[in-house]
Amino acid sequence: MRLSRYFLPVLKETPAEAQIASHRLMLRAGMIKQASAGIYSWLPLGLKVMRRIEAIVHEEQARAGHVPILMPTLQSSDLWRETGRYDAFGEEMLRITDRGGREMLYTPTAEELVTDIFRANVSSYRDLPLTLYQIQWKFRDEIRPRFGVMRGREFLMKDGYNFDLTEADAMHAYNRHLVSYLRTYERMGLQAIPMRADSGAIGGDNTHEFLVLAETGESEVFYDSAVTELTFGDREIDYDDMAQCQGVLEEFTTRYARTDETHDQAKFEAQVPEERRRSARGIEVGQIFYFGTKYSEPMGATVQGPDGKPVPVHMGSHGIGVSRLVGAIIEASHDEKGIIWPEGVTPFHAGIVNLRQGDPSTDSACEGIYKQLAVEGLEALYDDRAERAGAKFATMDLIGLPWRITVGPRGLANGKIELTSRRTGESEEMAPEAAIARLKDVYGCAAT
Amino acid sequence: MRLSRYFLPVLKETPAEAQIASHRLMLRAGMIKQASAGIYSWLPLGLKVMRRIEAIVHEEQARAGHVPILMPTLQSSDLWRETGRYDAFGEEMLRITDRGGREMLYTPTAEELVTDIFRANVSSYRDLPLTLYQIQWKFRDEIRPRFGVMRGREFLMKDGYNFDLTEADAMHAYNRHLVSYLRTYERMGLQAIPMRADSGAIGGDNTHEFLVLAETGESEVFYDSAVTELTFGDREIDYDDMAQCQGVLEEFTTRYARTDETHDQAKFEAQVPEERRRSARGIEVGQIFYFGTKYSEPMGATVQGPDGKPVPVHMGSHGIGVSRLVGAIIEASHDEKGIIWPEGVTPFHAGIVNLRQGDPSTDSACEGIYKQLAVEGLEALYDDRAERAGAKFATMDLIGLPWRITVGPRGLANGKIELTSRRTGESEEMAPEAAIARLKDVYGCAAT
Repeated sequence: MRLSRYFLPVLKETPAEAQIASHRLMLRAGMIKQASAGIYSWLPLGLKVMRRIEAIVHEEQARAGHVPILMPTLQSSDLWRETGRYDAFGEEMLRITDRGGREMLYTPTAEELVTDIFRANVSSYRDLPLTLYQIQWKFRDEIRPRFGVMRGREFLMKDGYNFDLTEADAMHAYNRHLVSYLRTYERMGLQAIPMRADSGAIGGDNTHEFLVLAETGESEVFYDSAVTELTFGDREIDYDDMAQCQGVLEEFTTRYARTDETHDQAKFEAQVPEERRRSARGIEVGQIFYFGTKYSEPMGATVQGPDGKPVPVHMGSHGIGVSRLVGAIIEASHDEKGIIWPEGVTPFHAGIVNLRQGDPSTDSACEGIYKQLAVEGLEALYDDRAERAGAKFATMDLIGLPWRITVGPRGLANGKIELTSRRTGESEEMAPEAAIARLKDVYGCAAT
Repeated sequence: MRLSRYFLPVLKETPAEAQIASHRLMLRAGMIKQASAGIYSWLPLGLKVMRRIEAIVHEEQARAGHVPILMPTLQSSDLWRETGRYDAFGEEMLRITDRGGREMLYTPTAEELVTDIFRANVSSYRDLPLTLYQIQWKFRDEIRPRFGVMRGREFLMKDGYNFDLTEADAMHAYNRHLVSYLRTYERMGLQAIPMRADSGAIGGDNTHEFLVLAETGESEVFYDSAVTELTFGDREIDYDDMAQCQGVLEEFTTRYARTDETHDQAKFEAQVPEERRRSARGIEVGQIFYFGTKYSEPMGATVQGPDGKPVPVHMGSHGIGVSRLVGAIIEASHDEKGIIWPEGVTPFHAGIVNLRQGDPSTDSACEGIYKQLAVEGLEALYDDRAERAGAKFATMDLIGLPWRITVGPRGLANGKIELTSRRTGESEEMAPEAAIARLKDVYGCAAT
């Protein structure tokens, strides 16, 4: 993308209303614009990051064998009355009356609707296991929306629902989600720690939240510092292998790690040696639940079991905060100059800064690099504006592309450009071909 | 995708409530399920087609130089009061009161919000031309929703908005959209004819609707039969070339073609020789508008012109009915057995039918073909269920994949499988490698 043809309205001033880094930086980098309280328009740069996050979620869900659907944002209240949640949910649910006087709502979650899809179409245990998921907009009418997309009212969420014949099968689905979430967050450059949590309005006893440690997190968390040393890495996983998935769950959840809702100080002290006890703040970026037959029983979502008798299915639901993750990643990865995108979610793979726009030799070198990167499957943002170098560097630092290629007349006279890492700030002079080869290597299979 | 692991709830019965072919077939093929009146859940097969359509729209928008953003589904009424449309829009606009008592609405279109984004961020003519677009859910509270996704209440739409310094520039944006829409529809296997139309709630005098001729269309249309012979084809286009885009507009819109709203019988008879006069029904799948300063003036969306003086920008808006297109394509392409997807939007590139599931030789041949297709970038739906052949064929015909590979023990003894075209019904015996080569050829660059 050529910046002269893009829409990147960066702000010079720090917006007064933004209290935390991600909110400030998303506004300054021209990623979002507030439309009304807790509701945002996603400008091109912000949307691009969100789409990268969505793509990772979709890929990891497919790998786990989960099937994508898309449910509407508005639902009738009828289904919610079947489970009693229409009255129970409280004021965070946005209630709407349509022109025909029907009671509708903007969905904050979709257990009822997906259970209705299931009961209308599945009747035999032979069609199980089944996990359906979607990435769709949700609405929660927060009384005090704040922190930008971190606590917005309209937000994009991945929500998945498993349907299984037995509790054991449903717990495997739970474990499968845990494993796929670990992979998902790591691909985004995040360490998200599964912690025992409270189930809130969804219900059930088994639930883990995934938390990214950050000073601005809304939850207080208590954990054994050993959990921060665990990584999933690139190990092979067979999502049909119940023992293997169970093993990963045990590895990642046996040590003490809880949000304040479920924290037990006595247990904490008994289980964790003092030097490994930590308390900190965390940002919730996902949650998994097993709640058994809480929805299938009242809604009559049964299948015929192997013995011919009807059995209510065992269910769980599993969420990832997609739009919130854009903010969470920034909270975890920024400095005083701006955002530092992890390679997995960066909106552009590299930035190209032309130090002397209009000079035939720098222009043609930039064009050549820009086009060759595209051929290699790498997308660059080429700052082709007639701006001074300082302004171009400041913009690139602010928007946080992990790699910058700087092209100036002096280096070019020796056949060299400069490749700079946003994270380390280190620059290296090299031939354009070498820089392209380096970037191909950095992005590896993700870009090809 | 292996069918045993997919969620494809096909119906044997024809649903009584469905009056038109696309609605019937989408329900029977397990593509959608009604959630409430005029509101649908998209099941895996339906969602996959919609995503293919979205991808084509995004690609063609990028080619035309338009920049994607994403605006929220809920908006405050404030902006709509600035243009007077909050009162003018009528009952199709779903009005909502949030818990703080604020008047909100579920956006039926987004001229006001995008103009607000523009005025907050763009101040110089040097940043023009600019076209921002999104693919986002909209809501229109139809009094009588019907025909499935063809006239639903919650629907997915591409809406784009151009901002230009002069009327001439804005008319170039209009022409650019016309050209890109012609390409977009043709890639979906549709002939969508631009016809002079009425501008309704959007406003302005210049507007064309794109109509697909079909008996079930909601609009009566009148046209010179010569317009049905025009195709855009694979000609090269430079979207910056004003004369070239204007030439395409003239080629496609000079001959008489109008919806009943703007039909003029006297002109029709004067301009079109009797033997070429046609009246028929059409499905609206898109519309482009030029409305000048209708929104920029009341909202104060001005830029500093070359002479330093503020000028209200000239705008237009441009829509494609993304979810509706799924139905429109089916209306244009089906037979008594089911859907016939054009290659450009098919949910899977081919179906694989194993005539003797459980037989080691057919199983292994099917697996091999399935995996090799994936290597070539082609996605197959492999019917690996223990069903009889007749049921498998009926499902494949119903869901309409353009190509079917049938693997049976008899053919396999001679190293042959059968490749069948859904459109012509013709089958040909050949080696598996030959079938894969044929499919690679059919899908060409689209799949690689």
